[in-house]
Amino acid sequence: MAYNYRTIIEKAYQMANSMEDEGKLATYIPELANVDPSKFGVHMTKVNGDNFGMGDHLERFSIQSIAKVLSLTLAYKILGEEIWKRIDVEPSGTKFDSLLLLETNNGIPRNPFVNSGAIVICDILISHLDDAREEFLAFVRKLSDLPELNYSDKIADSEKMYGYRNVALCNFIKSFGNIENEPAVVLDFYFDMCSLEMNCQELSYTISFLANNGYKLSNNEVIVSSSQSKRINALMLTCGFYDESGEFAFKVGLPGKSGVGGGIVALYPNNYAIAVWSPKLNPHGNSFKGMKLLEEVTTHSEMSIF
Amino acid sequence: MAYNYRTIIEKAYQMANSMEDEGKLATYIPELANVDPSKFGVHMTKVNGDNFGMGDHLERFSIQSIAKVLSLTLAYKILGEEIWKRIDVEPSGTKFDSLLLLETNNGIPRNPFVNSGAIVICDILISHLDDAREEFLAFVRKLSDLPELNYSDKIADSEKMYGYRNVALCNFIKSFGNIENEPAVVLDFYFDMCSLEMNCQELSYTISFLANNGYKLSNNEVIVSSSQSKRINALMLTCGFYDESGEFAFKVGLPGKSGVGGGIVALYPNNYAIAVWSPKLNPHGNSFKGMKLLEEVTTHSEMSIF
Amino acid sequence: MAYNYRTIIEKAYQMANSMEDEGKLATYIPELANVDPSKFGVHMTKVNGDNFGMGDHLERFSIQSIAKVLSLTLAYKILGEEIWKRIDVEPSGTKFDSLLLLETNNGIPRNPFVNSGAIVICDILISHLDDAREEFLAFVRKLSDLPELNYSDKIADSEKMYGYRNVALCNFIKSFGNIENEPAVVLDFYFDMCSLEMNCQELSYTISFLANNGYKLSNNEVIVSSSQSKRINALMLTCGFYDESGEFAFKVGLPGKSGVGGGIVALYPNNYAIAVWSPKLNPHGNSFKGMKLLEEVTTHSEMSIF
Amino acid sequence: MAYNYRTIIEKAYQMANSMEDEGKLATYIPELANVDPSKFGVHMTKVNGDNFGMGDHLERFSIQSIAKVLSLTLAYKILGEEIWKRIDVEPSGTKFDSLLLLETNNGIPRNPFVNSGAIVICDILISHLDDAREEFLAFVRKLSDLPELNYSDKIADSEKMYGYRNVALCNFIKSFGNIENEPAVVLDFYFDMCSLEMNCQELSYTISFLANNGYKLSNNEVIVSSSQSKRINALMLTCGFYDESGEFAFKVGLPGKSGVGGGIVALYPNNYAIAVWSPKLNPHGNSFKGMKLLEEVTTHSEMSIF
Repeated sequence: MAYNYRTIIEKAYQMANSMEDEGKLATYIPELANVDPSKFGVHMTKVNGDNFGMGDHLERFSIQSIAKVLSLTLAYKILGEEIWKRIDVEPSGTKFDSLLLLETNNGIPRNPFVNSGAIVICDILISHLDDAREEFLAFVRKLSDLPELNYSDKIADSEKMYGYRNVALCNFIKSFGNIENEPAVVLDFYFDMCSLEMNCQELSYTISFLANNGYKLSNNEVIVSSSQSKRINALMLTCGFYDESGEFAFKVGLPGKSGVGGGIVALYPNNYAIAVWSPKLNPHGNSFKGMKLLEEVTTHSEMSIF
Repeated sequence: MAYNYRTIIEKAYQMANSMEDEGKLATYIPELANVDPSKFGVHMTKVNGDNFGMGDHLERFSIQSIAKVLSLTLAYKILGEEIWKRIDVEPSGTKFDSLLLLETNNGIPRNPFVNSGAIVICDILISHLDDAREEFLAFVRKLSDLPELNYSDKIADSEKMYGYRNVALCNFIKSFGNIENEPAVVLDFYFDMCSLEMNCQELSYTISFLANNGYKLSNNEVIVSSSQSKRINALMLTCGFYDESGEFAFKVGLPGKSGVGGGIVALYPNNYAIAVWSPKLNPHGNSFKGMKLLEEVTTHSEMSIF
Repeated sequence: MAYNYRTIIEKAYQMANSMEDEGKLATYIPELANVDPSKFGVHMTKVNGDNFGMGDHLERFSIQSIAKVLSLTLAYKILGEEIWKRIDVEPSGTKFDSLLLLETNNGIPRNPFVNSGAIVICDILISHLDDAREEFLAFVRKLSDLPELNYSDKIADSEKMYGYRNVALCNFIKSFGNIENEPAVVLDFYFDMCSLEMNCQELSYTISFLANNGYKLSNNEVIVSSSQSKRINALMLTCGFYDESGEFAFKVGLPGKSGVGGGIVALYPNNYAIAVWSPKLNPHGNSFKGMKLLEEVTTHSEMSIF
Repeated sequence: MAYNYRTIIEKAYQMANSMEDEGKLATYIPELANVDPSKFGVHMTKVNGDNFGMGDHLERFSIQSIAKVLSLTLAYKILGEEIWKRIDVEPSGTKFDSLLLLETNNGIPRNPFVNSGAIVICDILISHLDDAREEFLAFVRKLSDLPELNYSDKIADSEKMYGYRNVALCNFIKSFGNIENEPAVVLDFYFDMCSLEMNCQELSYTISFLANNGYKLSNNEVIVSSSQSKRINALMLTCGFYDESGEFAFKVGLPGKSGVGGGIVALYPNNYAIAVWSPKLNPHGNSFKGMKLLEEVTTHSEMSIF
């Protein structure tokens, strides 16, 4: 059966947009607190090349933690399965446990998408690349076909000023020996990495190689192997939404990743990648309207992997 | 592309069977400790009705926790989405946390597959059915087309004699008000429920409605709705293997559920259900050879939902 | 310097009695919920035999957990230092951790005054005595010179009806092998033990051997050795008030033990034992007015061990 | 009864010295790893001015965490009871929990002697003094009558180089808002504070004001009030030995504080202060021989507060 994706997305967008937005803006840095909270956009990129969007889908926003999928991809590409000696692949339970679990696991983060895991990924990239900051940017530019893409110094600097929790995590892991470089250097790169800005169209296109068995859509270049692509997807499904990962798998049924800037990406293997953006967050730190839209899309279609 | 499932399974079976079995028998009750540890069987039931198996696939074993999928199905069928007021849908992190998390969550179990969650499901069935023990059995007989299927008193009695941990869990949840019936009554049913015995053929057939959008294969009877079927699958993917759930999603990439008797079921929506059995368990409590076989099946084919 | 204890206590009583009582009655069993919340009594027994009291000091109340000091004394007398193989001597941190700590410590309770520890003490007494219930009662009758003292069946039965949390603890410890007898038997004795009723005069006299290096006041009989007496006192200081133990040591500076019935005993070695009773409890489960009175007594005198 | 303290200490020293030392040197910085492990000294300072020592009691060592008693004293002197808004007075349970408890307590450390609490004390001193580093040193010089006493740059620098865990703690607390100054500044002072070196004679004299109701022995100068002195002693008793605090109260029965350099101070109010030093540590991080000596002193005398 062929779905009319465009119609389904339009309906889901209208539905989610008509709901009262119960979310709240992230306020820990001015760059996120000052975003217009009414913004709402969605864009879908199909593996056959079709793509379409609605609302504020062409306006750039801070992708924040969504970038962790890209840094994991680059590190996985470089190290292969060796990477799992330094990071586990299990959901983290609750926010609550993250530090306790780090302690019981001797500094091995639960997965690459919790902050501690993403920090270890940054450490890996610094150890294996001549200039991690530049080479990661080049990698994302290639994935996105956006040669002018750049880090946002304003956002990165703001994060650095208030990022005490991440400084704590990085030094804690270092004390177990699972960070090789100096914490200050690792964190600088980490904050840069999370400062990238894209719009929904660019983001759904950038991530679409994971819906395409690891091949870049435009030229069939192998970004990661088919097996690696499947494994990154599995990780997004089980760990992509912090302590709401089970809920997302349950209600949406797709691999995905959210960011505190209000963006979410999700993908249906062999079909499409989708990006939504709405800045107000639910109590778990995920975009309120974005979650509703995606839930609507997969509930009222049968577009779920289950 | 059409796969030759039979060939893939035969190869995976040979591979797993040739490995040194690093697992250990469950020994907490004599009924599990005395099983022949060399047993190894697999059976696949495709949604088109084809089915085939190998090794000890026609010998019955104690399905243990795999029965939790069936009790959840019946309770979900009865209560609908109301059920999630009493049980959450999130992975539990580690074994470690189960009691801590129960405490911080005021007696709401993390998901229906951890013991605490399955006990709450039993409580729900007792409250909503005239005779939960008989009606649950009738439900499984219908699903399996095995009118003579019965509880194993020997196994249930053994579990009751050593089940102090489960008595603790049930009373702990009761202290928060999330058990309605008397703990002794709830636990009796719980131990009965886990005492069912099937062989791989019967088990893969019994579970196949979840690979078929909720419809029973033989007569297209609606067991649960398509949406409920997807959600049970999502739960199996994120929570089906205790603290190894992420690893299973990562390496096998299918919804599944394991039991301490050495059985595992897994399924590929719209394609097939599969059951494996090998009694020796890895340190996480999942069948050592069973996990290897399933990993081989999905790695060397492309039969993964990701 | 000689203190006029009577004057100090009178002033402290007046002060505490004039405060607004911010506490709340324990309500989990009717026998505690129906107590007159305005009751307030205090009685001091000096090691020289002098004793005096005020307010409702001659009215009996449920001593609850204060009895744990007496059961520990009997078990310690029987087993000597062997007892610490089954129970630790460390404060428990918070309420919160009790189950987590039991798990990480393989079923060894943190100390003999948390519920789990007192349950293990009951198990020890059952294993080492012909009839623990009768022999413990005889022991308390001897300590108190109250030959007619008895368990309160009404209170014990009520506790049994609502004691799910304690059933959970006992079975949890049993699952680690640190309970030798059947949980139901151990718990029956535990609930009986906590059902004793005394008034402030009787209670301060009963406990006074711990202020007298282990010798009973009236006849110098050795109840426990001087070293054991000191060690029980040390345990009361560090662990006698659950997660408010540090606060009590800090503000009152005496070994003591509280009960959920609103009673508290405390003692100044070589000087006196004191018992207070006021049924309304602060958020930590300790008598609101009782804590205030004792704080006043030691702050405005210099009657602290520090 | 008058004890012959000198004889008791000599016997305890001989006994402890004849035991096989099961401890291990702290090795995380070269300055501690290179100390002669056979060193063993003890010195007692009585409140009547008498003092005597044995073994290596005149050789200086790194007092490490023992300095936390002195920094707490200065901060308590300045802020009074206000100080307890930022630090609690409860034992911390286990090492294990420190981070979990910090999280559940919103960045309020459990007590002033765990690292997190001592770091908050440093922050308080920096906020309330013009030059915390110099003024704290002046305070210790005055207490010890050692005008030439100084920080050890070598030790402080070494700690800074390997102190990732403390950097983590400080930034974690900062993320909750309970550190006012920049983490790097607070930590510099913290490492300096812990780098002081004294010998047993100097240390027992320095700490003796706490055995003397807050008055300095030599000139009766009020260091802290009698009430504050008692409260610091209570804190040492309940929290002075990390997760072995209960054990120390139980076996030794005196307020005390240990350091990872192998030093321990303890005191008997209105009687004496004692300092021991032996570099090899038991698994809890407290001097193996030092603990044995103090246990012997109080067990075989009756010199315990209980």
